Amino acid sequence: MPRIALVTRIPPEGEALWADHLARALPGERIGIFRDLSPAERAEVDIAIVANPDPADLAELPNLVWVQSLWAGVERLVAELGDFRRPIVRLVDPELARTMSEAALAWTYYLFRDMPAYAAQQRQRIWHARPYRRPSRTRVGVLGLGELGAAAALRLREAGFDVRGWSRSPKDIPGVVCHAGEETLDRMLAEVEILVCLLPLTHQTRGLLDARRLARLPEGAQIINFARGPIIDSPALLEALDRGHVSHAVLDVFEVEPLPEASPFWDHPQVTVLPHISAATDPETAAVIVAGHVQDYRATGAIPPSVDLTRGY
Amino acid sequence: MPRIALVTRIPPEGEALWADHLARALPGERIGIFRDLSPAERAEVDIAIVANPDPADLAELPNLVWVQSLWAGVERLVAELGDFRRPIVRLVDPELARTMSEAALAWTYYLFRDMPAYAAQQRQRIWHARPYRRPSRTRVGVLGLGELGAAAALRLREAGFDVRGWSRSPKDIPGVVCHAGEETLDRMLAEVEILVCLLPLTHQTRGLLDARRLARLPEGAQIINFARGPIIDSPALLEALDRGHVSHAVLDVFEVEPLPEASPFWDHPQVTVLPHISAATDPETAAVIVAGHVQDYRATGAIPPSVDLTRGY
Ligand SMILES: NC(=O)c1ccc[n+]([C@@H]2O[C@H](COP(=O)([O-])OP(=O)(O)OC[C@H]3O[C@@H](n4cnc5c(N)ncnc54)[C@H](OP(=O)(O)O)[C@@H]3O)[C@@H](O)[C@H]2O)c1
Ligand SMILES: NC(=O)c1ccc[n+]([C@@H]2O[C@H](COP(=O)([O-])OP(=O)(O)OC[C@H]3O[C@@H](n4cnc5c(N)ncnc54)[C@H](OP(=O)(O)O)[C@@H]3O)[C@@H](O)[C@H]2O)c1
Repeated sequence: MPRIALVTRIPPEGEALWADHLARALPGERIGIFRDLSPAERAEVDIAIVANPDPADLAELPNLVWVQSLWAGVERLVAELGDFRRPIVRLVDPELARTMSEAALAWTYYLFRDMPAYAAQQRQRIWHARPYRRPSRTRVGVLGLGELGAAAALRLREAGFDVRGWSRSPKDIPGVVCHAGEETLDRMLAEVEILVCLLPLTHQTRGLLDARRLARLPEGAQIINFARGPIIDSPALLEALDRGHVSHAVLDVFEVEPLPEASPFWDHPQVTVLPHISAATDPETAAVIVAGHVQDYRATGAIPPSVDLTRGY
Repeated sequence: MPRIALVTRIPPEGEALWADHLARALPGERIGIFRDLSPAERAEVDIAIVANPDPADLAELPNLVWVQSLWAGVERLVAELGDFRRPIVRLVDPELARTMSEAALAWTYYLFRDMPAYAAQQRQRIWHARPYRRPSRTRVGVLGLGELGAAAALRLREAGFDVRGWSRSPKDIPGVVCHAGEETLDRMLAEVEILVCLLPLTHQTRGLLDARRLARLPEGAQIINFARGPIIDSPALLEALDRGHVSHAVLDVFEVEPLPEASPFWDHPQVTVLPHISAATDPETAAVIVAGHVQDYRATGAIPPSVDLTRGY
């Protein structure tokens, strides 16, 4: 009988919580934490369920058939598995999309309702009402219209914002002006006052928001990055912030995480640093979705839809 | 032919903006700013449109029939008009209700998504993800279910929160558990993690949230006051904050506004001070609503529904 290995480099409590939820969702399966498995047991593993796994651990599973990611972002898996190619199945969880669309709305409100500016005024004991403009007159752009970006664009639209979206292939999202393809990006950037990044990190998107593209944003634009740090060129962003061209950035993701002590982002007055919390996977709902994949595979032998390794997402 | 006087103590630019919008919405009316009117002209005024008026100014309008407030809160008018009793018509504007429900959701998200705690962590360069709990498992209470409170309760409900409301008379709001009457308040307070105050200031609500009632809230509760400062007993609130019983308060309204320099709220780490900006009247939409009242009155002679002066709202 085959086995499932849980392979992670997350803290032990987190790993134990996952093991628990997975065991409950898959009562008929033998699920073990990788480092507790003997070599003989490792040889029985056909499915690895992973969260930031050490590639060397996966290489010790000789009969592995496919990999289930507990995260939506798989750029590291794609890069690190290298020659040891196995189908990678990403997590698609409506609850994750809900949480991310909530985060997109919450931090868009944070910027739209001037919360950073009012906090600065409070520190200086300044009582001053800033002008209010309705959401319908505020243009918000969403980069990436996949599982998370499309949900965020819709949620922002429902809240009344004037929303524009951007993706590789054309999309049709009710009430959202959708642009597709690299050649449309410059125009779209010039149109948005708040920019929410929900792209995957790939060869194409690494460094996408560089000095030239940031300069396309209108003066005083605000940025929210909930995707991956390297999509934005950090020195270029800092420079745009210092010039005031970008008035504020909410950053949940960074090139190196945890964000190093010495990073200039920590105490930049126009930067809100978040510790990668915009949308954490919920073990309760995600375990049920992963269980569905495993059960389908056991029943039919068909591997669930997997990531396009050349495209990178 | 009768006249309309605009009587305010708001800054001149604001007053001029209102005069402009009102003139456009009521092209057939003679509308003048109070201090520009001669005594003879003042005697022709039958309607006063007011925002924080000096009662002495209103007393100089001998033929005044009714008063239209440009604000939703009329406690000061009710208190200050004293013997000079005229029907007071408050502003009911769906756009104001929309803005306030947006503010209720925006600052509920601010607390719910731990923005003050993450800001404190950023100041100390601490990278630490705090536990996330879904809105459906987070209980939010709304005090006051009138034009603004009901809209806020519905908006919070739509965002997935577990919402409870409280008012004088019983209400029926889909998906919201509604309590009515003073005897139900203690129980309702004990149930909510985030409390949003949208009550009018009256003899009954002044000091309503005193030390005893604040103690009814569960440990670590959070408070948002978008109504009027004196509804919460400030020393009791400060004491509850210092004990950590109330973990954070978002205060948009105060006993004295602008908030005096010496107020302990300014630099309290658990307090977010806002300069009465949760929902400002929009002259564009409000002028049209006020115009409707004036036109109805000119056509029928019937004064629009007015504030119950003994009840106070
Ligand atoms: N901060 C957090 O807590 C957190 C949590 C979860 C996920 N994330 C991040 O969010 C990212 C997005 O997640 P997702 O589930 O929405 O991904 P997804 O479903 O794969 O969607 C990706 C979207 O980006 C678009 N895209 C990709 N490459 C592009 C390019 N070169 N030019 C234009 N558009 C491009 C895709 O276009 P097409 O639709 O045309 O393919 C698609 O719309 C993840 O990759 C992960 O990094 C962060
Ligand atoms: N911060 C800002 O920018 C801002 C902007 C606008 C307004 N406001 C404030 O918001 C307040 C509320 O506005 P609104 O338009 O929603 O007022 P409203 O329509 O008059 O509604 C008041 C609500 O409070 C309830 N209430 C009154 N006295 C009560 C008592 N003693 N016990 C229990 N419930 C009581 C009423 O109950 P019933 O329904 O049973 O009568 C009603 O549901 C205004 O008075 C104003 O002070 C603030």
